[in-house]
Amino acid sequence: MLADMSDSLFLRACRREPVPTVPVWIMRQAGRYMPAYRALRAKHSFWEMCKTPELAVEVTLQPVNGIGVDAAILFSDILVPVEAMGVGIEFTEGRGPVIEKPIRTGADLDTLHIIDAEEVSFVYDAIRILRGELAGRVPLIGFSGAPYTLASYIVEGGGSRNYTHIKTMMYKEPALYDRLLNMLADVVIVYLTAQVKAGAQAIQMFESWASSVSPYDYRTRVAPYSRKVLAALAGLGVPVIHFANGAGNFLGDVAATGADVVGVDWRVDLDDAWTEIGCDKGIQGNLDPIVLLGGQDEIERRVTDILVRADGRPGHIFNLGHGILPETPVENAKYLVDCVHRLSTK
Amino acid sequence: MLADMSDSLFLRACRREPVPTVPVWIMRQAGRYMPAYRALRAKHSFWEMCKTPELAVEVTLQPVNGIGVDAAILFSDILVPVEAMGVGIEFTEGRGPVIEKPIRTGADLDTLHIIDAEEVSFVYDAIRILRGELAGRVPLIGFSGAPYTLASYIVEGGGSRNYTHIKTMMYKEPALYDRLLNMLADVVIVYLTAQVKAGAQAIQMFESWASSVSPYDYRTRVAPYSRKVLAALAGLGVPVIHFANGAGNFLGDVAATGADVVGVDWRVDLDDAWTEIGCDKGIQGNLDPIVLLGGQDEIERRVTDILVRADGRPGHIFNLGHGILPETPVENAKYLVDCVHRLSTK
Repeated sequence: MLADMSDSLFLRACRREPVPTVPVWIMRQAGRYMPAYRALRAKHSFWEMCKTPELAVEVTLQPVNGIGVDAAILFSDILVPVEAMGVGIEFTEGRGPVIEKPIRTGADLDTLHIIDAEEVSFVYDAIRILRGELAGRVPLIGFSGAPYTLASYIVEGGGSRNYTHIKTMMYKEPALYDRLLNMLADVVIVYLTAQVKAGAQAIQMFESWASSVSPYDYRTRVAPYSRKVLAALAGLGVPVIHFANGAGNFLGDVAATGADVVGVDWRVDLDDAWTEIGCDKGIQGNLDPIVLLGGQDEIERRVTDILVRADGRPGHIFNLGHGILPETPVENAKYLVDCVHRLSTK
Repeated sequence: MLADMSDSLFLRACRREPVPTVPVWIMRQAGRYMPAYRALRAKHSFWEMCKTPELAVEVTLQPVNGIGVDAAILFSDILVPVEAMGVGIEFTEGRGPVIEKPIRTGADLDTLHIIDAEEVSFVYDAIRILRGELAGRVPLIGFSGAPYTLASYIVEGGGSRNYTHIKTMMYKEPALYDRLLNMLADVVIVYLTAQVKAGAQAIQMFESWASSVSPYDYRTRVAPYSRKVLAALAGLGVPVIHFANGAGNFLGDVAATGADVVGVDWRVDLDDAWTEIGCDKGIQGNLDPIVLLGGQDEIERRVTDILVRADGRPGHIFNLGHGILPETPVENAKYLVDCVHRLSTK
């Protein structure tokens, strides 16, 4: 019988229940800043680590053991379900996965399919093993990219400076854009539902590239597909965190997609953000990752500022406002976790 | 006797006086999207065009003649005064100017000097010629980077993904950071004062990389140096537009630096932005540049949305929310200008 962890700091905060100490985890907490990660990565490719349950499990556990975070998040990549749909992914050492042939026409789209639940079974296997390994220590978060962010990846062919291809499609070929986004929403629903059934105790959906759209486009052409996903997940009984990077000026619209907790980046003051999101939602964030490259006095000053802005209100999960940087000293990551715990304990 | 243009749509809007038609200009309006620009650029390097008054004048006039904008802005580069300080600039064809050796230590800083007004006389020569050429048609805007943005350039060595060097200096070496920023503020004061004396009728100061800092850092470590510059310019009698890219969540702090008009990017709704800035300031913006890659119906819909949000309040200058993209069809840029004029005329 697996511990359900519903009394954990993290899941109580997701439900906006009062907690004695603010829970903290770190986006990309299983990553290159950790010597243990680099040691494993020296022996295996990134994609091999994503696809081999035993390796994904080992990496997922590293920050739980190493720096004492209050939640584990599955080690994986947001392109995993995209590859399963039929998008060709190129694996160049040192660059991470890149799309071989961007999807830009109806004919391109015809080559893709909506995945069924077992097509990426290595993900669910990793989740099942992790639930046993974590054995009641901390809850496990599953995740996916949001439909627009996945669409941007496969239309642009990777990261992008101006997102001209996806946005030109949005403006000039609205029917094609809608077909692609609906397809991706269906994939994300299948993928996240299967993660929850395998044992994920919370879900984070990443709109990493919300920064590429105006509030107008977000409301009319991005949010509807996220709302479709979150409506489908509502019956699963696990909290959903929706992190939308660069959405500081339309956080109310992000909250309206139906998330339980809204993750915010570090470009907005946390109190202002929470006002926009509304008190009926939790908030996750939002320390600037680069502060972790500074001294510990600076880290403590900035953690204090965020905790003061959160004002002890139930529903705050501490995190960075973006993924931790590879050059972060691991002792500073650990100091952050300790600092949040020490300064927030009543 | 040169026309002072104080009755122009643009300068009246800068003073928040009622105007019959909303004025519009476009950031990077003299640029690669124009065939006339590309023709000249085929014969001269970018830096040569910046440094040769006759070429800078020709390029500056192209969008005034070609698409009918309501203000001209001097063609130049924000690194011009930086090079004059002694920072080595590398000129690689196709990449634009890049810093040869980033400035990261006190010894590096010792090699730089505060420019005197005549060190970049080609800039002031271009302004003087332009005032004659424009002959009362539209006002001329001068410009500079803001101290933090210039500092980021010379410390990072160019554009940057995470701005780790400048921000690590900010956190770990506050005295060195302060020395550098004060020096740059002094340079910007000399540079902009000389532009106004040469004939610039308004000034735009670009904080292009406000997007790299949190509200906390902006208030404590970026704004003070901009405030120093704007206080020194206050007596010159020309309006100052301060464009801070990515500052959507701390526009009140940007306004508090002392600008007459705050330029806003396209990630924020214009009405929300103006509320943050305050009614005692003008606002400039804020169409997403990528909309110009869409169809003209989309452009008209989006211009309408922005004009509705501005609500006819005096003090709105229409612009993009970032520089125009090289791949923009020139007829769409012209359509934008016509559209703003037609839809805003009372």
